[in-house]
Amino acid sequence: MDFDTIAAIATAPGEAGIGIIRISGKKALDVGDKIFRNKRQASLRECEERKLNYGHIIDPKDGKKIDEVLAVYIKSPYTYTTEDIVEINCHGGIIPVRRILELVLENGARLAEKGEFTKRAFLNGRIDLSQAEAVMDLVSAKTESSFDVSLNQLEGSVSKEVKQLQNTLLGMLAHVEASIDFPEDDVEDLAYSSLKEQGEQVLNKLSSLLETVYTGRILKEGLKTVILGKPNVGKSSLLNAVLRENRAIVTDIPGTTRDVIEEYVNIKGVPLKIVDTAGIRDTEDIVERLGVDRAKELLNQADLIISVFDTSTELSKEDFHIIDLIKDKKVIVLLNKSDLPSKISEEDIERYLPNKRIINTSIANNEGIEALENNIEEMFLSSEVKIKDNIIINNVRHRDQLLKAKENIEEALQSIGLNMPLDCIEVDIKYCWENLGEITGDTVGEDIIDKIFSEFCIGK
Amino acid sequence: MDFDTIAAIATAPGEAGIGIIRISGKKALDVGDKIFRNKRQASLRECEERKLNYGHIIDPKDGKKIDEVLAVYIKSPYTYTTEDIVEINCHGGIIPVRRILELVLENGARLAEKGEFTKRAFLNGRIDLSQAEAVMDLVSAKTESSFDVSLNQLEGSVSKEVKQLQNTLLGMLAHVEASIDFPEDDVEDLAYSSLKEQGEQVLNKLSSLLETVYTGRILKEGLKTVILGKPNVGKSSLLNAVLRENRAIVTDIPGTTRDVIEEYVNIKGVPLKIVDTAGIRDTEDIVERLGVDRAKELLNQADLIISVFDTSTELSKEDFHIIDLIKDKKVIVLLNKSDLPSKISEEDIERYLPNKRIINTSIANNEGIEALENNIEEMFLSSEVKIKDNIIINNVRHRDQLLKAKENIEEALQSIGLNMPLDCIEVDIKYCWENLGEITGDTVGEDIIDKIFSEFCIGK
Repeated sequence: MDFDTIAAIATAPGEAGIGIIRISGKKALDVGDKIFRNKRQASLRECEERKLNYGHIIDPKDGKKIDEVLAVYIKSPYTYTTEDIVEINCHGGIIPVRRILELVLENGARLAEKGEFTKRAFLNGRIDLSQAEAVMDLVSAKTESSFDVSLNQLEGSVSKEVKQLQNTLLGMLAHVEASIDFPEDDVEDLAYSSLKEQGEQVLNKLSSLLETVYTGRILKEGLKTVILGKPNVGKSSLLNAVLRENRAIVTDIPGTTRDVIEEYVNIKGVPLKIVDTAGIRDTEDIVERLGVDRAKELLNQADLIISVFDTSTELSKEDFHIIDLIKDKKVIVLLNKSDLPSKISEEDIERYLPNKRIINTSIANNEGIEALENNIEEMFLSSEVKIKDNIIINNVRHRDQLLKAKENIEEALQSIGLNMPLDCIEVDIKYCWENLGEITGDTVGEDIIDKIFSEFCIGK
Repeated sequence: MDFDTIAAIATAPGEAGIGIIRISGKKALDVGDKIFRNKRQASLRECEERKLNYGHIIDPKDGKKIDEVLAVYIKSPYTYTTEDIVEINCHGGIIPVRRILELVLENGARLAEKGEFTKRAFLNGRIDLSQAEAVMDLVSAKTESSFDVSLNQLEGSVSKEVKQLQNTLLGMLAHVEASIDFPEDDVEDLAYSSLKEQGEQVLNKLSSLLETVYTGRILKEGLKTVILGKPNVGKSSLLNAVLRENRAIVTDIPGTTRDVIEEYVNIKGVPLKIVDTAGIRDTEDIVERLGVDRAKELLNQADLIISVFDTSTELSKEDFHIIDLIKDKKVIVLLNKSDLPSKISEEDIERYLPNKRIINTSIANNEGIEALENNIEEMFLSSEVKIKDNIIINNVRHRDQLLKAKENIEEALQSIGLNMPLDCIEVDIKYCWENLGEITGDTVGEDIIDKIFSEFCIGK
């Protein structure tokens, strides 16, 4: 496609060693030529392609030196956007990147929109839409495992799977049309049985892809975990023990309110997002400060509740309140202070909280933490899905498209089962194919494309 | 010198298009080789020097793909540190830069300290200390003009000046020693007169360098400006008018308290730091909230006070309070609301505030703003120093060294005037030479070097 030339700051703002201004488009080299000179006063065009060139950015208006830089140009089509690209590595900090960007804009480029470089990579056909979305997920990844999933997606894992499904669907459509054109009874019978077989293949594959959605969400967002217990049972010590041993991946998430703090930890490869309600981790407090409804909502949303009891004291009214709140949830029970004389037994807890994982701990002495971590790993792995699967759906849009496609193929299969006319069946297969095409962007509308890229950051 | 191999993230943290990990030292290429593979599975060493190579970062432990990157190596000595350098451009965001840095550290590099890349450039003799300091000033520059001054300094403007002075001083020392070794009367007389002449040259040059310190501070920090006036005279409109027309260079300065907000604007090349005391810009309010002492201190520290009076009403008690506070300060008086019938004349103001610049304005109608801007420019330019001077001292440490050197040469000149023994004079000349040497780092101690670089950011 033929676009104008765009430019943006490609590094994060702030004081740092290096800042980068990226220019992409037909005039990228023209713009670079106007403002860059190396030590021998040569322009960028005279330098070797892909090579970092030491020199200065000079304002062509008045010959003023703007900054000392390394500049490079990369020729179309083997670039990020498939267009000519010029990158200027200048001093980090607010002033140099901004003044060079301004000069670039004065000399023939336009300011890039959010995600416009990646959008061009998509529109020029270098990557498909699911790969473009992977780029954004890579940049905003909060956990290592989520990064890995997105890197796979960038390299085409999701696209490949979707295209295989689309090919099967195209085969089905060809079959249907052949049968419509040559409506002989025996051909038609054959068509129905073959369509049924292929349709079931598609359905099974869609179902197994959809089964990865839970894992994908956990890998992307972390297992939403709430630590619960009455005051002084050892909740803070537990949090500290877990945080100390499992380096928080991201401690500060922009956009979180002070009301609820989120800490990321990595336990045996399982990312946990520990929801720390700003020091209020006992039920009474949660209920008091957030209200019963929000407290219940918080516990409902949790993928895991770690409920801590103090075995050195009898079960109190407060403990029973907690038991009541969590009895139907995914809970790991910690019987803490196992080093002290026990007044609560496992049997007591099992009576009120049947079929929960129960672990004896002495958090203060670092005992039982390993057992807790093993239990978390087991719980996650047992959720029917292997993390090792190299294709995992972690994008809500993809999930929605897969769900729609699944509905379509289910309806097609139902029609096949009822020996409905082939042109009715054809419609559902087409819908299924189209809905899958929206994942890779084959069949997607401009509005959806615009929406997707508007969520990118500038300079990507 | 022979150092170990260091690495750090060279871009600012945050979600962005590109992140860079920089490695410097003898083992940089070894480290890069271990973890980078291009499409043909070639290592970095097999690629061309200075060329951006598309490929992947792979963990050599298990062959796991860490990220898709562009990697480049630059051979010693024509690099930032003069050592071998490897730079890895990866996806922006928190995870990719961190995991690649971790892999780099696992494979033979050590985490760089603050400013350690630039420190090596200094210790390896590529740049002197004043140039290294310029690097930090470039990165942290808040105004364009300050950036320009630091860019000049990086290119050696200060160093060159200092070295010329040191050469003159060395000449003087040679002269002194020759005269001590051959103590014949006529040689000695000649020595004194020649020393006097050269010493005065040095003194004059030092004085003129020190005269640039005010300009240097203004360019670096901005002309500290307070807008003052009683309520409803048009202060907010003025601030808005100035901000609208003169894009704020930096609106958000880390470390500023909410008590006092600072806005940077650029008026005809003069950077202004408008100190906005969080909406309290009338005297009563300042005094009430900050207390009389802090209010006076604020006004004392101001390089410029813009005092606004409402000419449509009589001078009030409050106006007289303001007049009292500012009468000995650098003030531009605005007689605002000149579109309404006037109840205060220029003569009234001149009587209470003699010898101030007075401008009639109607801020609401955008009248008089241009005149205000011209006056600010004139005031700044008339402060004896030309901004255009290509050497300006904007570093407090340099100023202190210049002041010490000036004292030394003054004492030497006094001794010369009194025909004191030459070895007394020699000592002062040596001190002067040494104090200047601390600017370029010739004579500086390790503690000062460490202190200077500890103020850098990581990755520079």
